[in-house]
Amino acid sequence: MAVETHTLNVRTRGNAEVLDLSQPLTDVLSRSSISDGIVTVFVVGSTAGLTTTEAEPGLLKHDLKAAFEHLAPEQAHYAHEATWNDDNGHAHVRASLLGPSITVPLVDGVLTLGTWQQIILIDFDTRARDRRLVVQVMGD
Amino acid sequence: MAVETHTLNVRTRGNAEVLDLSQPLTDVLSRSSISDGIVTVFVVGSTAGLTTTEAEPGLLKHDLKAAFEHLAPEQAHYAHEATWNDDNGHAHVRASLLGPSITVPLVDGVLTLGTWQQIILIDFDTRARDRRLVVQVMGD
Amino acid sequence: MAVETHTLNVRTRGNAEVLDLSQPLTDVLSRSSISDGIVTVFVVGSTAGLTTTEAEPGLLKHDLKAAFEHLAPEQAHYAHEATWNDDNGHAHVRASLLGPSITVPLVDGVLTLGTWQQIILIDFDTRARDRRLVVQVMGD
Repeated sequence: MAVETHTLNVRTRGNAEVLDLSQPLTDVLSRSSISDGIVTVFVVGSTAGLTTTEAEPGLLKHDLKAAFEHLAPEQAHYAHEATWNDDNGHAHVRASLLGPSITVPLVDGVLTLGTWQQIILIDFDTRARDRRLVVQVMGD
Repeated sequence: MAVETHTLNVRTRGNAEVLDLSQPLTDVLSRSSISDGIVTVFVVGSTAGLTTTEAEPGLLKHDLKAAFEHLAPEQAHYAHEATWNDDNGHAHVRASLLGPSITVPLVDGVLTLGTWQQIILIDFDTRARDRRLVVQVMGD
Repeated sequence: MAVETHTLNVRTRGNAEVLDLSQPLTDVLSRSSISDGIVTVFVVGSTAGLTTTEAEPGLLKHDLKAAFEHLAPEQAHYAHEATWNDDNGHAHVRASLLGPSITVPLVDGVLTLGTWQQIILIDFDTRARDRRLVVQVMGD
């Protein structure tokens, strides 16, 4: 049983941009010596979150963004913006709702995702960001 | 320290049907040789999700379904449906919001749930499905 | 590789009170012999949840509460309340949406959180509660 910590750096554009993490995660796991256990992906920072979806353009480019605009509208009042005189209160609220981490079982070196199920990062911030993801692999 | 991978197959009816997973999970854990660690339950596919609730009929049959209809209405416009000419855009969005996995500590062979707290699967798809859940148990 | 189970007891006031768990979690981890692995924090009960946010007063005292009132309004109809003749249907729904657990990588004895990213508990119940949190640390 072992623990490995990998870091993944990605460039995002913000404004609910959705990034499909399949390829970078596959690259990380191809360098891992662990084949069975759990993989925890965690995004550092409080204006982005992680989940899974089918990585097709309708969901990635439109539907998830529209859903979060419905849940926590950009133009609503956020006390956070008065604290810092900034504009990303909705980004913080959306990130808290989605959550910063996802845990997926690893079996025979492969994440147990469905064929049309990919791990995605949604960056809710209002500007481009360099995001750091921690990929913790634990198992045999 | 060991890792065990169990599979759980359940039949769902979709349309935000909520399944209480207590009994199947208890069965899986009764066959496990691990008593202390973490249990990760993961649903394969991108139109269902996992969380906990009190398994009583009001929440299971009405309130959770109504809440997700409020969050991501079935009749809203989803670009996903144009991509595939299907009808389950809301199911994808809801599943991404809820998330595909849940991690619960295991202590002395028992999940550390509250008395009125059960692990549930919500299937948001618009048709009956055979769902595969991966139950990864890691610990001593 | 080892597993440690710690318990954290906190007093909450309910009504979407947000508690910053940084200090109690730092105390727990300072007593741990594990420096690299994953930390799973789990709240026992079905009317509270865990996530991360920037712990500043605007988000903690106003924005998250307002967001959950928008998502699952206190005055909406909840069948749960008819079942038990109580008043906390919204609390159950909000807790299921947020989720009862969070998993964060631990590296060199420190959680991989951002500088302005803290683990928080939100208690949605309609009264003060004594909450039990399980902090499971697994790793080397």
